[in-house]
Amino acid sequence: MLPELALVPGEPAGIGPELCVRLVQQPRDDCRLLAFADPDTLRAAAAALNLPLQLLPEDAHARVPGDLRLRAVANSTPSRFGHTDSANAGAVIAALLGAGQACLSGELHGVVTGPVHKAVINQGGIVYSGTTELLADQAGVKVVMMLANHIVRVALATTHLPLREVADAITGPGLEHTLRTVHAALRREFGLAAPRIAVLGLNPHAGEDGHLGREELDLVIPLLQRLRSEGMDLIGPLPADTAFLPAKLAGFDTVLAMYHDQGLPVLKYSGFEQAVNLTLGLPYPRVAVDHGTALDLAGRGIADPSSLQAATTLCARLARQRTLST
Amino acid sequence: MLPELALVPGEPAGIGPELCVRLVQQPRDDCRLLAFADPDTLRAAAAALNLPLQLLPEDAHARVPGDLRLRAVANSTPSRFGHTDSANAGAVIAALLGAGQACLSGELHGVVTGPVHKAVINQGGIVYSGTTELLADQAGVKVVMMLANHIVRVALATTHLPLREVADAITGPGLEHTLRTVHAALRREFGLAAPRIAVLGLNPHAGEDGHLGREELDLVIPLLQRLRSEGMDLIGPLPADTAFLPAKLAGFDTVLAMYHDQGLPVLKYSGFEQAVNLTLGLPYPRVAVDHGTALDLAGRGIADPSSLQAATTLCARLARQRTLST
Repeated sequence: MLPELALVPGEPAGIGPELCVRLVQQPRDDCRLLAFADPDTLRAAAAALNLPLQLLPEDAHARVPGDLRLRAVANSTPSRFGHTDSANAGAVIAALLGAGQACLSGELHGVVTGPVHKAVINQGGIVYSGTTELLADQAGVKVVMMLANHIVRVALATTHLPLREVADAITGPGLEHTLRTVHAALRREFGLAAPRIAVLGLNPHAGEDGHLGREELDLVIPLLQRLRSEGMDLIGPLPADTAFLPAKLAGFDTVLAMYHDQGLPVLKYSGFEQAVNLTLGLPYPRVAVDHGTALDLAGRGIADPSSLQAATTLCARLARQRTLST
Repeated sequence: MLPELALVPGEPAGIGPELCVRLVQQPRDDCRLLAFADPDTLRAAAAALNLPLQLLPEDAHARVPGDLRLRAVANSTPSRFGHTDSANAGAVIAALLGAGQACLSGELHGVVTGPVHKAVINQGGIVYSGTTELLADQAGVKVVMMLANHIVRVALATTHLPLREVADAITGPGLEHTLRTVHAALRREFGLAAPRIAVLGLNPHAGEDGHLGREELDLVIPLLQRLRSEGMDLIGPLPADTAFLPAKLAGFDTVLAMYHDQGLPVLKYSGFEQAVNLTLGLPYPRVAVDHGTALDLAGRGIADPSSLQAATTLCARLARQRTLST
């Protein structure tokens, strides 16, 4: 049975709707997609790109290019490409929550999301710090953000924090939860029986035996030793500058970086277009594009669909693997 | 007139001596090299690698493979490959200081250094935090560390600090000095009339308009505006994760990272073997290898000489350019 995935375009004024239209021009044999979106916005994107689009009832089957099953989440006001309107913030959030709820209830098996414009949502009076956080709150779990391309997977111990707050945000219990979440996801969703996780040090040179910071000695190393005794294959703590050497990366299934700018530059340098953003720790797989709304490109048909395609392919694979392993 | 460069092998028990022997197997037309080293150590390296080595007086000329002019700095005790001895710490430091002094006096025009083993120097009772700092203190200047390969040059606003100390170490006057030093070096040593310097934000997403930290708004942006009004071509502050995208890097002559693990992972990922470590702000160019002493490889002839070769070639180029621009 093919996994059923929710497809949520995100900000209606951005490139998300047209990327969804482009996505469904190729028939898929790895999943069935159900869009949670405003139908007029999708139709406008198809018209702007001069591509076929047939919005189908949920119980129909996609058969030809442009077929897309739809659960309508209507905008409050017509959207215009390139021009955000906070009146539609509620619809954007409703689509995301609807998709999440459908997975929590077992109706669907995964969520693929396009880019959301954080400031527009907040202007609409909705407290929102990101789709990752929104879906985690809905599910009542703590999650881990992972970015991945064909070269490397990077999980983050902390995400969007001022740099001066990072060191205090790395705690023993928090890091343990992160490692357990990553390890479980690699086993259950990626199908890796014994995942190898490289853990970066917080400090340069991983602290250099305490000369450049003590968090490795006081916190990271004892935790890794304890988790290794349970059978986890953990490497590190490693100096961040040399952990990404290509020959070393080949030996890791995932790199756990302690913070945003330590982990993401190599990931984006080595393959930005195909990069995707995963949420680990939800009861279902969720994969997002790793790019923004690109308002200046919207409606012009020139936005690169590679990340949404990669996100959909990966989400289908993770959903299948999760079914196999449960 | 060819520039005269000091060549200092560094730790005698490491791979530095054999890399120097390999370096002089090819005649050079870009510089004249003068080794500051222990002659027995160099001879032992040549013997171990079965390569010719003729140590010449300073007033001689290198003509055939293996010719190397020498200013002897004798070890206190014979060195053995792979086995450090802190009794030789004094000789290692004396060679570095001798090379630096010869440049300060105008006798020589640049310094190329191999890897030094920090702990061994400290065990020898000498306060030493790195060759960069040693040469800066000798010259009485503040310097900037830059790492470079064929893909990118990365200068660092802070270097070997615990992560929790980084934010407070970024100050307006300090960052201004760093930017002026980098700008002057790119003009004077790299011969770039109008260097383009990309400045990374301290915080993720370069602070995202203050939502993820205020240092960009309070400190970095006003400083960049002031320096731009003097004519400097400064880009940023940029988010670190996307500043290294290959298409963006092509538009920058240098990236200024705020700290070690923000700037160096992409540099090492994109070409570790040819990477070199430059010291900007000295009265002469100094270029070092970007690798360690590799004690386990020493004397075996398998260490990769690419970094020392790249360092020498670059130092010769910088020394020539400096002569042209003064």
